[in-house]
Amino acid sequence: MSTSPAERSASIPAHESSAMARARELGATVLGTTSPNPAVGAVVLAADGDVVGEGATHPPGGPHAEVVALAQAGGRARGGTAVVTLEPCAHTGRTGPCAEALLAAGIARVVVAVPEPTELAGGGADRLRAAGVDVVLGVEQAAAERGALAGWLTGVREQRPYVIWKVAATLDGRVAAADGSSRWVTGPEARAEVHRLRAGCDAVVVGSGTALTDDPHLTVRDTGGAVAGRQPLRVVVDRRDRLPATARVLDDAAPTLVSHAATPAELLAELFDRDVRRVLLEGGPTLAGAFLRAGLVDEAVVHLAPKLLGAGPSLVGELGIPGIGSALTFSVADVLPLGGDVQIRLHPTRHTGGGTRTGGDGADGGS
Amino acid sequence: MSTSPAERSASIPAHESSAMARARELGATVLGTTSPNPAVGAVVLAADGDVVGEGATHPPGGPHAEVVALAQAGGRARGGTAVVTLEPCAHTGRTGPCAEALLAAGIARVVVAVPEPTELAGGGADRLRAAGVDVVLGVEQAAAERGALAGWLTGVREQRPYVIWKVAATLDGRVAAADGSSRWVTGPEARAEVHRLRAGCDAVVVGSGTALTDDPHLTVRDTGGAVAGRQPLRVVVDRRDRLPATARVLDDAAPTLVSHAATPAELLAELFDRDVRRVLLEGGPTLAGAFLRAGLVDEAVVHLAPKLLGAGPSLVGELGIPGIGSALTFSVADVLPLGGDVQIRLHPTRHTGGGTRTGGDGADGGS
Repeated sequence: MSTSPAERSASIPAHESSAMARARELGATVLGTTSPNPAVGAVVLAADGDVVGEGATHPPGGPHAEVVALAQAGGRARGGTAVVTLEPCAHTGRTGPCAEALLAAGIARVVVAVPEPTELAGGGADRLRAAGVDVVLGVEQAAAERGALAGWLTGVREQRPYVIWKVAATLDGRVAAADGSSRWVTGPEARAEVHRLRAGCDAVVVGSGTALTDDPHLTVRDTGGAVAGRQPLRVVVDRRDRLPATARVLDDAAPTLVSHAATPAELLAELFDRDVRRVLLEGGPTLAGAFLRAGLVDEAVVHLAPKLLGAGPSLVGELGIPGIGSALTFSVADVLPLGGDVQIRLHPTRHTGGGTRTGGDGADGGS
Repeated sequence: MSTSPAERSASIPAHESSAMARARELGATVLGTTSPNPAVGAVVLAADGDVVGEGATHPPGGPHAEVVALAQAGGRARGGTAVVTLEPCAHTGRTGPCAEALLAAGIARVVVAVPEPTELAGGGADRLRAAGVDVVLGVEQAAAERGALAGWLTGVREQRPYVIWKVAATLDGRVAAADGSSRWVTGPEARAEVHRLRAGCDAVVVGSGTALTDDPHLTVRDTGGAVAGRQPLRVVVDRRDRLPATARVLDDAAPTLVSHAATPAELLAELFDRDVRRVLLEGGPTLAGAFLRAGLVDEAVVHLAPKLLGAGPSLVGELGIPGIGSALTFSVADVLPLGGDVQIRLHPTRHTGGGTRTGGDGADGGS
């Protein structure tokens, strides 16, 4: 096989591409439940191309995605194709190796998005090929890496959790009015989306300022307001021990960590050691500014309310940026309506230092 | 005929609805060239339903949309249908009455979005019906009113121009960095869109602060940078005569009005008297704040750059809003990608005075 991953990616049949899209979706459904393991999705196609099994990673200690999908497929997997977002493991961890399970089921072809990046779990493709299975690696790899695997891959590559900064602000970038009131900046659909975002993370982080001002529960609640069964770790960064014992975030609705970490990097290291791979940063402007300055925001989810306040705290604190050429820049991943509000999802691109196209030259910003 | 306009609207055939959508598009193509007349679009369908003529209002003194479309249709208009965004006029102004032109062409049916709101020009439907033509009024009226007719209708109803506030800002609502630099907040696609916005307006307004700081030309240029043939009136609000004679806005590329108006309402009255019906407000935070406080913004076009600055002037000045419940609220009309930036178009909904759901009650803005 001499074709590159990109060439292979273009050449897989349409039904396998559909199965891969579905596998990515399946992986996303278990976000927040699999760490420190990756949230993998798998689809098994029978020899005739029919979808006969679907699966996603179970919580640690439970079966991997391929094994779930194979169990659903039963005998129809024989001679069929497994489409998975991550290369099947070849090692025996808390569960047996998936490569062996695929062989035992008689799978003839395995289509993989992301090759296993760790040495420990690697070798699945080699093992399968050695047994005569047709293995294709790198299929729609970028989409899978940006999706449900992003948190786990960040952990593998940078030994820190993936950080999603969520913020709700007005058109003029205010998170609260002049008198501090912020209930509500956004509407019920946006607030429900925050609960979905939390449910897909292993930890939700705020600073002590937000904990004191807003006294949030930081729990995941369903649309009816009931507290969900699984809750991410609630984290309050509170170096000066300002959090009162009566704070809602300290109730027994979910586990809580009060951290004395001095920097975002220190906090992330602490969380990584607790198997946290996806962090939702809901802190106020000060904490958000600290993470942004440190280059430790991987994704931003901005809930923009179509309102103007004209005064009040900004969504981000001082960033030490003198001119427009040094702005912190993002690329827009997608824009969605959320009730009357707008959700903008972004990824940081670069922190341009010392841009040259600054003003004072008779700049005409609009023309 | 006893059905209401809404019922009629639902009952027109699909090909007439398509023609009406096209008529709205045609009207929009001549925005900025017809004031003080309305930017009307017209489509003529032959008796068999084929589109045989299209037209839009010519500049004042030129033919109206129906006459243009009839000329294109020629003999094929006989027994056909005219689909127009505004009720054909029955009076003789600078041009002859369109109702008579439709009768002369042998049109059998006329489908109208917006009934003529002025007594002077009204009576077209009555005249046509009296001559045996089938006339349907109020077809997809709201869409036409929100579209190319908005400026003219605002003039008829409120004796002032329609005001579109355009602003380019970062995610944190900054129009410039801490050092004042603002070149460029947004990318080339957004800047090109500003020129299209200008081309669709009769006047472009800035305050003396913007004129001094940015020294803009405020002209309409094409994508190649060439100055367009038709230019909107450039307006600088300069009560204290701060504008130097060397300002670019005073060059001979387009007409310019230096206004001493004390209030937005006074300025709009001045512009209305000059036949201006659509104003693009490109002023800075102070002028925008004055228009917003006065309730004189009809549409906002926000070009949002996916950037953060952490400091710098906000897109709007102080609005006198104490709490979140009193925020100036908008509804989102549409959201479009513009290169790497995002365009959000909005309409004001209400200025809620003295909201009760303000903070200080242990508010949890995000949960």
